[in-house]
Amino acid sequence: MIKPLSVLNQSINRNVIVELKFGRGYRGVLDGFDPHMNLVLKNAQELANDEVVNRYSLAIVRGDNVIYISP
Amino acid sequence: MIKPLSVLNQSINRNVIVELKFGRGYRGVLDGFDPHMNLVLKNAQELANDEVVNRYSLAIVRGDNVIYISP
Amino acid sequence: MIKPLSVLNQSINRNVIVELKFGRGYRGVLDGFDPHMNLVLKNAQELANDEVVNRYSLAIVRGDNVIYISP
Amino acid sequence: MIKPLSVLNQSINRNVIVELKFGRGYRGVLDGFDPHMNLVLKNAQELANDEVVNRYSLAIVRGDNVIYISP
Amino acid sequence: MIKPLSVLNQSINRNVIVELKFGRGYRGVLDGFDPHMNLVLKNAQELANDEVVNRYSLAIVRGDNVIYISP
Amino acid sequence: MIKPLSVLNQSINRNVIVELKFGRGYRGVLDGFDPHMNLVLKNAQELANDEVVNRYSLAIVRGDNVIYISP
Amino acid sequence: MIKPLSVLNQSINRNVIVELKFGRGYRGVLDGFDPHMNLVLKNAQELANDEVVNRYSLAIVRGDNVIYISP
Repeated sequence: MIKPLSVLNQSINRNVIVELKFGRGYRGVLDGFDPHMNLVLKNAQELANDEVVNRYSLAIVRGDNVIYISP
Repeated sequence: MIKPLSVLNQSINRNVIVELKFGRGYRGVLDGFDPHMNLVLKNAQELANDEVVNRYSLAIVRGDNVIYISP
Repeated sequence: MIKPLSVLNQSINRNVIVELKFGRGYRGVLDGFDPHMNLVLKNAQELANDEVVNRYSLAIVRGDNVIYISP
Repeated sequence: MIKPLSVLNQSINRNVIVELKFGRGYRGVLDGFDPHMNLVLKNAQELANDEVVNRYSLAIVRGDNVIYISP
Repeated sequence: MIKPLSVLNQSINRNVIVELKFGRGYRGVLDGFDPHMNLVLKNAQELANDEVVNRYSLAIVRGDNVIYISP
Repeated sequence: MIKPLSVLNQSINRNVIVELKFGRGYRGVLDGFDPHMNLVLKNAQELANDEVVNRYSLAIVRGDNVIYISP
Repeated sequence: MIKPLSVLNQSINRNVIVELKFGRGYRGVLDGFDPHMNLVLKNAQELANDEVVNRYSLAIVRGDNVIYISP
């Protein structure tokens, strides 16, 4: 048994896939998070239909948009 | 009478089906959860129309997307 | 005058109908609940247009999806 | 000046009309409530276009669906 | 500088217009409220396209539906 | 660095533009607010496509509808 | 590991891109924020399809509309 936030903690500095509501997907290095699942992503790519549509060196994603995070 | 979180606790390391809002379904081994029903799934499969459309070795699902969880 | 959660408590081990947002309906034996109206249903049937479309020996329904529960 | 929950309290054992989000309307005897406006309705009728489409001897309505309640 | 709830307090026993989400409008005498902006309206009229479509001698409107209230 | 509510405080008695969810826009004099961003507007105009469609001498706008406020 | 609000703090007086729900995008100088991710933007531009459709010398954006913020 592991807590969801512990898995996030173990994923720091690792690549994660983040699926958001409204059909948005992101890929990037998890640089930080807080208990609301607000996320800090480094070298983030926004994806649509598996294609990169935007790149951000740093992005703060508000947690209430998150559907799932896969380390 | 059993508490919903107690059922989740009994389902640790067992296969669960998770139905989310927005027409998403997942199948996987429940590896963890917290009181918001944030879930950790191992060997997760994303399903659409009973077909597997994605596989994740690990996924954190944010609880506010959950409709039901079936152990 | 009776509290809504007291009615749920009296419905433990009895058949209930649960109507959810997004057009979903469930029938099953109420096995548990918590103050958020998260529910545990045993021998649950998912209904669409009065037909059974799914069966679950056990299901945890997240309370924020509930429209009404009828014992 | 009267508090909304005091009006609910005065409406116990009286007929009420309850309008919910998603186009649902109910009529029934108010048997109970809590501070979230979760309601207990006795002899409830579900209405669509002023016609009765369902009857429940008892129903717990989750408060976050309520638009208005008219005693 | 005046607090929003103070304006509501000054509007007790006066006519108010209440605009709700989902395209609903109400007109009535404000009889009460609470800090969630749950409202008690007396002699309420429900409006659609500036026409009266329903009348209620008393209605409790749940605050989370409110867009604005105009005294 | 300035707190959002401090900017609101500095905007008291000044004209503000308020953009709400659901495509609604308002212009008026900010007369008050609270920490939920519930607003009191004086001499408010409701706008659609830059045209004035409604006028209110006083309006309380519920904060959860606000997208942005521009002083 | 860095907290999301710490990244916001480091972005004060710097240009940020803010993507909101409902298809809105903003560009401006971050002048302030609070723990709800309510933001104060200076010299803000509202964008649609990469074109500037509105300009504000100052805007308070309510945090619950935010999808992501990129410094």
